[in-house]
Amino acid sequence: MIHFYCGSGSPYAWRVWLALEHKALPYEMHLLSFSAGDLRSDAFRAINPRGKVPAIVDGDLKLAESAAIVEYLEDAYPHAGSPLFPADVRTRASARRIIREADEYVAHAMEALVDQLLFTPEKGPDDEAIDGARARLVDELATFERELRAPFLVGEAGAADFTLYPLVALSLRMQDRKRPALRLRESLGPRLNAWLQRVEALPYFARAYPPHWRAA
Amino acid sequence: MIHFYCGSGSPYAWRVWLALEHKALPYEMHLLSFSAGDLRSDAFRAINPRGKVPAIVDGDLKLAESAAIVEYLEDAYPHAGSPLFPADVRTRASARRIIREADEYVAHAMEALVDQLLFTPEKGPDDEAIDGARARLVDELATFERELRAPFLVGEAGAADFTLYPLVALSLRMQDRKRPALRLRESLGPRLNAWLQRVEALPYFARAYPPHWRAA
Repeated sequence: MIHFYCGSGSPYAWRVWLALEHKALPYEMHLLSFSAGDLRSDAFRAINPRGKVPAIVDGDLKLAESAAIVEYLEDAYPHAGSPLFPADVRTRASARRIIREADEYVAHAMEALVDQLLFTPEKGPDDEAIDGARARLVDELATFERELRAPFLVGEAGAADFTLYPLVALSLRMQDRKRPALRLRESLGPRLNAWLQRVEALPYFARAYPPHWRAA
Repeated sequence: MIHFYCGSGSPYAWRVWLALEHKALPYEMHLLSFSAGDLRSDAFRAINPRGKVPAIVDGDLKLAESAAIVEYLEDAYPHAGSPLFPADVRTRASARRIIREADEYVAHAMEALVDQLLFTPEKGPDDEAIDGARARLVDELATFERELRAPFLVGEAGAADFTLYPLVALSLRMQDRKRPALRLRESLGPRLNAWLQRVEALPYFARAYPPHWRAA
């Protein structure tokens, strides 16, 4: 049994959650509360000294960093459920490139929006920072739109989709709830729109949906 | 023959270079000039649309993102040279976690120093930004110091070492050449110091040394 430590709404935890469901692995979810300080507890620091979710405990392995966890799930359980990575070496390399691009470029633009719109600075949101982050995000999503050929990012649904989807979903949620003027949804091309719908139609999608988003 | 596109002094290109040497793979190096605009050329954009080094071309595969390239080299050439990742699944997972932590936390603190000390803003370096980045970097390196048990980051020399080493080396170089007051070198613990020396003693280290650093 894999112990899965997550925080509701964390796009990085969401990635691991989708991967666990995709691989149909048995897991026990531990939902930590950011506001209650669960991530700074000694118990959790013993699992991840950096105090960040997601993390997993699988037997004697304690593992943090969502991308490393997803690689581990495939590596340790190659025959469980559906594969997270393409079988072909070169296609697999492209999947890993896309994962890094999502984590490096899309995630950092999204994080800048999170800093301004969810953890708003005391002096209020910085419009210039928001505009800059919005521009970087739109630019990145346009690159993904141009690259997208298959129904999913690299052939079948897998690790690349589970990396990008939560980042886009959280960005769109910030638009819907905090700042309609972001107009990110309006900037999405037809391929990315169809891809979002295909991810949302995955049979386990509803099971791995951030709990506190459900109520809203 | 692998075509390896790099820029001198890029810690991400350096990582791939060390990996190519470690695996003893035949490669042809293409040294691109940042200042001459080589990375924005149409020819290079056809290899990496984001215009970033490193990138490789191997037959019909064009691949960017240093971490994805290193994974590919191991995946495509498992029996060449020395392995880049540990054979044991759980140790391999830890290697990938360390790689992500280096890329996410060490690299971003280092990048903030690069922005201030190498690509200095017009209004001059921002001391507050430098102090913040320095503090994050010292904190991260202390975490690595605590974790370091083996001669290398995860058993034998490999991908994790080739990720962290160039980030630390470039940070120390900025101290030596731009701002001695950073005192990063003085903050390193005995394990990280010994580890730096072990990386520098690798038989191929001198061959994969940034060309424009040699002259200095």
